[in-house]
Amino acid sequence: MPLPRNPNAFANSPLDRAAHHRRDPAWIDEALKAPTTELMVFHAHKPFVVEREGALEAGWMGAHAAAAIAPPATPLIFLGLDAHGARFAIEIPDPAPLESVGRFEELRGIGPRLTADDVAILGCAKSLFEWHARHGFCANCGAKSVVAEAGWKRVCGACNSEHFPRVDPVVIMTPVCGDRVLLGRQAKWPKGMHSALAGFMEPGETIEEAVARETFEEAGLRVNAVRLHSTQPWPFPSQLMIGVIADVENDDAKVDEHELEAVRWFTRDEARALIAGKHPDCFSPPPFAIAHQLIKSWALAD
Amino acid sequence: MPLPRNPNAFANSPLDRAAHHRRDPAWIDEALKAPTTELMVFHAHKPFVVEREGALEAGWMGAHAAAAIAPPATPLIFLGLDAHGARFAIEIPDPAPLESVGRFEELRGIGPRLTADDVAILGCAKSLFEWHARHGFCANCGAKSVVAEAGWKRVCGACNSEHFPRVDPVVIMTPVCGDRVLLGRQAKWPKGMHSALAGFMEPGETIEEAVARETFEEAGLRVNAVRLHSTQPWPFPSQLMIGVIADVENDDAKVDEHELEAVRWFTRDEARALIAGKHPDCFSPPPFAIAHQLIKSWALAD
Repeated sequence: MPLPRNPNAFANSPLDRAAHHRRDPAWIDEALKAPTTELMVFHAHKPFVVEREGALEAGWMGAHAAAAIAPPATPLIFLGLDAHGARFAIEIPDPAPLESVGRFEELRGIGPRLTADDVAILGCAKSLFEWHARHGFCANCGAKSVVAEAGWKRVCGACNSEHFPRVDPVVIMTPVCGDRVLLGRQAKWPKGMHSALAGFMEPGETIEEAVARETFEEAGLRVNAVRLHSTQPWPFPSQLMIGVIADVENDDAKVDEHELEAVRWFTRDEARALIAGKHPDCFSPPPFAIAHQLIKSWALAD
Repeated sequence: MPLPRNPNAFANSPLDRAAHHRRDPAWIDEALKAPTTELMVFHAHKPFVVEREGALEAGWMGAHAAAAIAPPATPLIFLGLDAHGARFAIEIPDPAPLESVGRFEELRGIGPRLTADDVAILGCAKSLFEWHARHGFCANCGAKSVVAEAGWKRVCGACNSEHFPRVDPVVIMTPVCGDRVLLGRQAKWPKGMHSALAGFMEPGETIEEAVARETFEEAGLRVNAVRLHSTQPWPFPSQLMIGVIADVENDDAKVDEHELEAVRWFTRDEARALIAGKHPDCFSPPPFAIAHQLIKSWALAD
């Protein structure tokens, strides 16, 4: 009996990370020559995609084809193994050699058109490339750091510090009072869009403390109980979204105008309409976002 | 009805973080002069403690007393508000002025002797000081960064990058098969100590994926179901421990000798003996550690 399926995009990677191979450069070199190896090329943190008969596909290619277009020093990440072989990602500085075959697209925009497996794999690669791009120097001493362990570590030659990819936990929650759910909106969002409240966890907090703090800060609501719904890795750039349904004590919501433009209570019928795209003047984020899954889970619960 | 009490040390901080004050230097300056303000002094990331009638206490002091011993440029963290006033922490380079009154001690060792409230507050401060100590330079460009927002941010004057304290999510799990729980031990631990399995979450993973990966990597066990028990902020230096009971499919455990020296199955009676400190040849971590709470929760469940 496998684990119950997580409903979120970017979850459920089909790859075995096989992390022990990361520390084995000889194995990595061999894998890069294997005919079963497949490789995803990124440019400016955007994955390579191709149109085939009107459908968009992740443009996986053999390692030989990729080697022909990649400079020798191209950053490389070992992503893991599937039933056929190894998977890698590289980032190339010049997109030109591939522009006649396909294009590089922001994962956030095209994710919903790709397979769930590719979304999970490409999201992981994107998080790592984003991290490398913003962490080229040692935070401990300021010297340049270098990539190690097939993309999963950076090492500082000056002070010997080791640096590992950041994963930033974020609590994202739908406050529920009686038979209504509160959603908020930021001024910069498209007109009518409402979503869950959210905020980065801080040192010294449990999940329930972070949920209580953010829910009070953003909407003036006091949290009584916290139910974990699911988690989602979110590669923009590297959050762990911790989705929670929060039962709150009061319904006199008070919006924090530094964070949000407005908050609004929705009945269960209204929340169902939001999810179905049938609300007269509001809409929710798409199924790609954990906020959608949180609202849906509460709206459709018996 | 407040939130159910989290069983873990470092959880349940009594402070309101009042994060909006962090961005208000005038308010911070005023608070530092207030007679109700209390301040915790650290040296080398160790908090100041005093013995009073044989009991150890966190050595909170008034801001005036602290100002007398701290150089003007001393790093300062605004921790939040309690019912009486504001709480801050500072780190001083020279412990001498306070050594006649008390001493600086590692929080990990003395935590169990302090009140739960002080453990939560001091843990948060320690995480932040550890982060500042290892992040004095901008990871994006290598320039020196400076503290901002009353200790909660660092800013790079060269490239304008903003840096926020790390919180590293870690899954920590007790694999359960039928009526037995698996615990592991590292070679460097005291003889007989057995604890939960654990590992850092990586980009691109959900909680259940990280639990499944680490449980298989470390012990060769396949996870069927994951139940969240609780979370714990762990300030050595700044983990979010995500405590999970993992139902596993197989009991032919195979230890990963790079990570662990041994794994061992314990019956429920044996687990109860571990928690009570009455097992003939093994013991578990103390109640201070979430591993203890995980084992206890399973061992004492009906």
